[in-house]
Amino acid sequence: MPILLDNPFAKLTLTEYGERLRRGEISAEIVTASLLQRIEALNPKLGAYTFVARETALAAARAIDALLKAGTDLGPLMGVPVAVKDLYFVEGMPLAAGSKLDVSGIVRGEGPFIRALRRNGCILLGKTWTSEFALGGINFIQHVPWNPLDEETHRTPGGSSGGSAVAMAAGLCAFALGSDTGGSVRMPAAMCGAFGHKFSRTAFPLDGVFPLSPTLDSLGTLTASARDAALIWSTLQGSGAIAPASLRGLRLGRPAQLFYDDLDPAVQCGIENALQRLTRAGVEIIAVDAPEALEFEAVFGRIVPIELIAILGRERVRDNLVIFDPITCARFAAALDQPAADYIDALSRLAALRESVARRMTECAAWITPTAPLLPTPMAECSTLEAALAWNRRALRNTRPGNVFDHCGVSLPVRLPHSPFAAGLQLMAGPGADARLLAIACAAEDVLSSPRNLSDFVPTNS
Amino acid sequence: MPILLDNPFAKLTLTEYGERLRRGEISAEIVTASLLQRIEALNPKLGAYTFVARETALAAARAIDALLKAGTDLGPLMGVPVAVKDLYFVEGMPLAAGSKLDVSGIVRGEGPFIRALRRNGCILLGKTWTSEFALGGINFIQHVPWNPLDEETHRTPGGSSGGSAVAMAAGLCAFALGSDTGGSVRMPAAMCGAFGHKFSRTAFPLDGVFPLSPTLDSLGTLTASARDAALIWSTLQGSGAIAPASLRGLRLGRPAQLFYDDLDPAVQCGIENALQRLTRAGVEIIAVDAPEALEFEAVFGRIVPIELIAILGRERVRDNLVIFDPITCARFAAALDQPAADYIDALSRLAALRESVARRMTECAAWITPTAPLLPTPMAECSTLEAALAWNRRALRNTRPGNVFDHCGVSLPVRLPHSPFAAGLQLMAGPGADARLLAIACAAEDVLSSPRNLSDFVPTNS
Repeated sequence: MPILLDNPFAKLTLTEYGERLRRGEISAEIVTASLLQRIEALNPKLGAYTFVARETALAAARAIDALLKAGTDLGPLMGVPVAVKDLYFVEGMPLAAGSKLDVSGIVRGEGPFIRALRRNGCILLGKTWTSEFALGGINFIQHVPWNPLDEETHRTPGGSSGGSAVAMAAGLCAFALGSDTGGSVRMPAAMCGAFGHKFSRTAFPLDGVFPLSPTLDSLGTLTASARDAALIWSTLQGSGAIAPASLRGLRLGRPAQLFYDDLDPAVQCGIENALQRLTRAGVEIIAVDAPEALEFEAVFGRIVPIELIAILGRERVRDNLVIFDPITCARFAAALDQPAADYIDALSRLAALRESVARRMTECAAWITPTAPLLPTPMAECSTLEAALAWNRRALRNTRPGNVFDHCGVSLPVRLPHSPFAAGLQLMAGPGADARLLAIACAAEDVLSSPRNLSDFVPTNS
Repeated sequence: MPILLDNPFAKLTLTEYGERLRRGEISAEIVTASLLQRIEALNPKLGAYTFVARETALAAARAIDALLKAGTDLGPLMGVPVAVKDLYFVEGMPLAAGSKLDVSGIVRGEGPFIRALRRNGCILLGKTWTSEFALGGINFIQHVPWNPLDEETHRTPGGSSGGSAVAMAAGLCAFALGSDTGGSVRMPAAMCGAFGHKFSRTAFPLDGVFPLSPTLDSLGTLTASARDAALIWSTLQGSGAIAPASLRGLRLGRPAQLFYDDLDPAVQCGIENALQRLTRAGVEIIAVDAPEALEFEAVFGRIVPIELIAILGRERVRDNLVIFDPITCARFAAALDQPAADYIDALSRLAALRESVARRMTECAAWITPTAPLLPTPMAECSTLEAALAWNRRALRNTRPGNVFDHCGVSLPVRLPHSPFAAGLQLMAGPGADARLLAIACAAEDVLSSPRNLSDFVPTNS
């Protein structure tokens, strides 16, 4: 085996990479080749990628280098190698959505988001693992990627965008695409110590992405930092650059219900410490009432499985129950005979919850919560169907409300002392507030990743 | 000399070219090489290009081909070779604005329009001739390009975007960029039988383009057809495709003043014939009152020269009068001591005219007029300063009102029987109506270029 090349993005933001590329100090081809070599070396263990488009990626990288040299600049994402969750249709790559069921015909061509990445000069490296139909983070039939934060024990990287989270955490891409119907971007980002951005639901058309629940689906990115996410967002939106927000006097709401209940102690310590540091930087953390959060689970469960069944075809699902993963099967079984009236009732409750939460959000710039109440769990502890379903419910408890409330959201990694893991710090805001949320996240990132991070750590019981 | 290659765009719309490119039947490199070979062979006589970026264009074309092959599609303009009027700043190319005065420092970098073309995958072939500072169509110190519609006699191609018009007419590019302060896109398009589109003034920021009159400047394209112009417009605006408008019942206004006065007989015949054919296709030509048109000249002349003087610096202009072209010098001399109050008065009159015309435009979808009252004039007839100034005034008489009124506009070529020349048919509409105007132009193009064009020609004296 050749000597493993360094992750070219380990010490470079996407902006810095772009600067070096334009100064001719680095080339898209070399960077792409380095990542491909890392994938070749590490993916057999990690299982992040399910398909690697080696030759196409290298050809695209060479073309990008030549185009830039000839004076054509496609913008800040030019030459940036991207990992794509295997829910996105990408010409020349297979699309399985984590399933043995043949899903060709459900998504028929590249959608606006992939086309936008291509037009911005991104290089598509390959497809990353998703749990079957993006339902949760654990599967039994197919493999589950290895969380690279623990080399010894196979721990869950979270899901459903777990392959993208592992690709980010292991330095196998510059950034990765995910999708988020109940936390599938934010939760694996938290598990793998990456930054996750769940876009506002209607930010980009979802054509070209395998649908799980058209009512709740949204796209998103997994990146090394809030700054990278902000660059991607502003570039694809064609808006101005996003500068870090001022934290002085910024009001962030701490919901009184649900989100801070029953946290793993390490998560609680990390999050309370982060809140203290943000407070010291001028943020005003205010308690907010969020009784709607207590209702999310019933609404979520009465919408997602049945919408997926409708997409696949009810008869087809019933006839193929045996080929689905036990996790999928359990969720389908509970929903196959759900009465339409119950679904309609859930939609109307959803609308009422969204309206009610929207009124509350005016008190503060965003809500601040832990992204997930737990740290990456050893796979051995999720080996039964019951344990896996319980893990899913708990791992996604704090993110599903964001989809129900139609929020955009981010998860910032908060490094934990004496631990390889990070706690996810979630910021949530109303639909369309992505740029503002990213501006706050960039400022929070500066505070939380400053050298004081570990040295000023004070455990609290608050 | 090698055998001259055919103009690859002679029988291909830009859309058809794109289709062939994507089917792999043609390559951007071959097409670019063909155009470069045509330029090499024809430009010494025609003088359309003042700078050719041979190596960069070929390198860009090769990179575009490789990128497309690797699956990155930059959209409908990918691989389209473009000629750029020498008022646009383009990295790696000189910028002289037709002058011996050093104008570096006035425009400092590529503007959004050139950047958008690059990001859409256009290949920039080189710079085309402009009259000095884009003032009119004739110069004495520098050469004037040869109108390719008459190989025997050196006739004016019009201006100021005359180099771009010649590049279009001679098949030396797929389309060309111009700018239009008083008709500089539309008039040369009419003179060379091309389609010209003067954009709405605020459609694109003018940064990166040498300014003549910030109050009246606009950008524009010269193309082989309305359809090509529509493709460029919809692509750069990111809007949907533009379908030809329905002509049945469409109301076009024929201004009672100025535009139809004192036309060359061949222009009159061609235009009246075109109006008849449009009427037969269902268009309703209505007489509209346009007394504002009689005022354009005084307003125009009191704004343009003095704004250019302000851009160059009044002292610098006065100190350098001898190095300017006699045409430029004459226009500067008349404006150098213009009192500020007179300029302010002209601006306020301009605003009043715009408001007044905007109210009139509600009667019809667009105004329809000849683009210019004359056909391409032999250069020998413009050999004195007086003759050249008079020619400029007459050639731009019908287009300057569009700039004064803040209109967008197009010029459609109407082929003339027993003549190598075309009359320009101008359509004008209020600011922001470009897509609608192009839809009408596409429909009119179908009617006017149908095989009936010559056979049903009926001279009229109406």
